[in-house]
Amino acid sequence: MFSDKLINAIKSKNNPTVVGLDPRIESIPEFIKEITFKKYGNNVKGISEAIYYFNKGIIDSIFDVVPAVKIQVAFYEVYGPDGFDIFFKTAEYAKEKGLMVIADVKRGDIADVAEMYSKAYLQNEYIDAITVNPYMGEDTITPYIHDVIEHEKGLFILVKTSNKGSYTIQNLETENGTVYENVANMVNKISNLVKGKLGYSSIGAVVGATHKEEAKILREKMPSAIFLVPGYGAQGATAEDVTNCFDENNLGAIVNSSRKVIFAYKSQYWKDVYSEYEYAQAARSEVVLMRGMINNALLKRKYIAC
Amino acid sequence: MFSDKLINAIKSKNNPTVVGLDPRIESIPEFIKEITFKKYGNNVKGISEAIYYFNKGIIDSIFDVVPAVKIQVAFYEVYGPDGFDIFFKTAEYAKEKGLMVIADVKRGDIADVAEMYSKAYLQNEYIDAITVNPYMGEDTITPYIHDVIEHEKGLFILVKTSNKGSYTIQNLETENGTVYENVANMVNKISNLVKGKLGYSSIGAVVGATHKEEAKILREKMPSAIFLVPGYGAQGATAEDVTNCFDENNLGAIVNSSRKVIFAYKSQYWKDVYSEYEYAQAARSEVVLMRGMINNALLKRKYIAC
Repeated sequence: MFSDKLINAIKSKNNPTVVGLDPRIESIPEFIKEITFKKYGNNVKGISEAIYYFNKGIIDSIFDVVPAVKIQVAFYEVYGPDGFDIFFKTAEYAKEKGLMVIADVKRGDIADVAEMYSKAYLQNEYIDAITVNPYMGEDTITPYIHDVIEHEKGLFILVKTSNKGSYTIQNLETENGTVYENVANMVNKISNLVKGKLGYSSIGAVVGATHKEEAKILREKMPSAIFLVPGYGAQGATAEDVTNCFDENNLGAIVNSSRKVIFAYKSQYWKDVYSEYEYAQAARSEVVLMRGMINNALLKRKYIAC
Repeated sequence: MFSDKLINAIKSKNNPTVVGLDPRIESIPEFIKEITFKKYGNNVKGISEAIYYFNKGIIDSIFDVVPAVKIQVAFYEVYGPDGFDIFFKTAEYAKEKGLMVIADVKRGDIADVAEMYSKAYLQNEYIDAITVNPYMGEDTITPYIHDVIEHEKGLFILVKTSNKGSYTIQNLETENGTVYENVANMVNKISNLVKGKLGYSSIGAVVGATHKEEAKILREKMPSAIFLVPGYGAQGATAEDVTNCFDENNLGAIVNSSRKVIFAYKSQYWKDVYSEYEYAQAARSEVVLMRGMINNALLKRKYIAC
C-alpha cells in the first residue's frame, strides 16, 4: 500500500519533506552544460542530458535524508521526446536509490483518457504516485483507483493549490462551502476506499502551504488523506505555515520544496559557502535545514497544544 | 490570428468539424500492425509506428474535407518517449497537409509551469492550439496569452466537459451561477483581449455536445469564444444536440468526433462496406456524413428561427 510505504519512509528518515526536481536549464551549473553540450550539442538532447546529470547529483546527495522526490513533468515535456525520456530515467534513478517518486503531472480527462494516463504513469514501475486535476469530476478520478490498488500506487488530487490565483475557481462559495471544500469532500469519500494499515489513504490531496487557515479546515475534512504540500520556500510559505497540514500525530503531510533546494548553491544563503561544483552538497544542506525547521515547527506546535 | 484562420478554414471547407486522432492500438487494422511490428517489434516503438502509419492514412484521406484535427496526447504519452515523438510527427504531417492542429493536452499548473507547457506546445510550429484546465485559476491561464498573440495560437479552456461526471464540480451552484458559468465569465473576460478580424477570439471554450441546454446559456455568456465541442458520436450526442453551440451565423463552434470517424471501418454502419485495408476511406465517408448531418441540423435551425 502506497500510504504505508510513504508514512514509513517519512518516519524512518524523520523527514516529512519531498524534493521537487524542477530543473531549469538556465540555473544548472555551467560546468554540467559544458560537459553535455560538448558531447550532445546545445540542443534538446544536450539540455536533457544536462538535466539528467544535474538530477543524479542531487539524488546522490539527498537520498539518505529525504523520503521522496517530486518530478514536475512540464520541465521535461518542454524538451519533447528527449526530455520525456530523461523524466522517466530520473524516476528510475531515484527509485534505485530507494526514494519514493511522485510524478507531478496534474492530468485530468474523461475516463477513457484517464485510463491512458494511469497506464502511462501508475503502471510505470519507477513511479509511486501522481497528481491529478479534479475539475472534470469524480468519474475522471475513479479510473486511477484500479492501479492504485493493483500496483500499490498513490494519487494526490488537487484541492487547494498554492498559487495566488487559486481563489478564482477554488474559493467560489457554494451552498455547501467553497469549491475546494466540495473537492475535499469528494477526496475524503474516495480516499476512505483505499486506507492502509497505518490509517492513511493512498489517495491524498494537494493543499498549498500558502493557505494556513484553509489547511486547518481541510485537515478535518480529509482525516485519512496524506497532504502533498507545495508552496514552501520559493513560493513564500514558512515552516510555521505548513504545520496545519499535519495531523495530531505530526504526520499525514509531505512538504515540497523545489527551486530553493535544488538551486540552493545560487541562493543568498549558500552562495558564499558552495561553488557551482558543489551544487549537490548545497542542496543537501538546504534540505537538512528545511527538515530541521519543519520538525521544530511541528514540535513547537505540539508543545503549545500540550 | 488563430481565430481568423480557423473560421476561414471552416468556411472554405464548409465543415465545422474536427477529427480526433485518438488511436487505440487494439482498433488499428491488423495489416498495419503486421508491417510495423515486423520492422520494429511488438513494443512501444512498433506500436508508435503503427499509430503513425494509421494516422497518416486518416490524414491523407480527410485533409481536403475537414479544417482541423485534434490530437489527444494521452494516447501517445502512454507509449513514453516513442509515443511522444509520434504525437509531434502526427502534428507535423497534418500541418503539412494544410490542416489546423489542436493538441488536446488539458494541462493546468502554476504560472512558472504553465510557461513550460506553453513553450512545449504553443511554441511548436506544427501545433495551432491547445486545451487547458481552469481549476487552478486565472493566473494559470494568463501565461499562455503571450504565445497566443506572439505566435498566433489558440487556447480552448475547459468550461463544461462532455462526461457524465462533469456535474460533480462544474455544476456546483455558487452565488453567481454554476461553477462552469463562473469559468465562462472568466473565459469571456480573457477572450475579449484577443479578438480577430472576424469577431472571434483566439481564446475559446470546451463545451460538451452532451449538454444542449447548458450550451445555449454558454453561447450567450461567451459571444466571441469559439467552442470546441467534444462528445459527438461515440459519446452519444447528435447533430441536433450541438446546434446550440453555434451562434446566429452558424459559426463559432467546431465539433469533434474521434473513434466514430477513425475507426469507422469497424462500425455497424460501415463494416460491410469497407475492409480494414480501406479504414481511411471509411473515415472519410463517416466525416462526410457527419459534415452533412451537422450542416443540415444548422440549416434546419436557421429555417425554424426564420
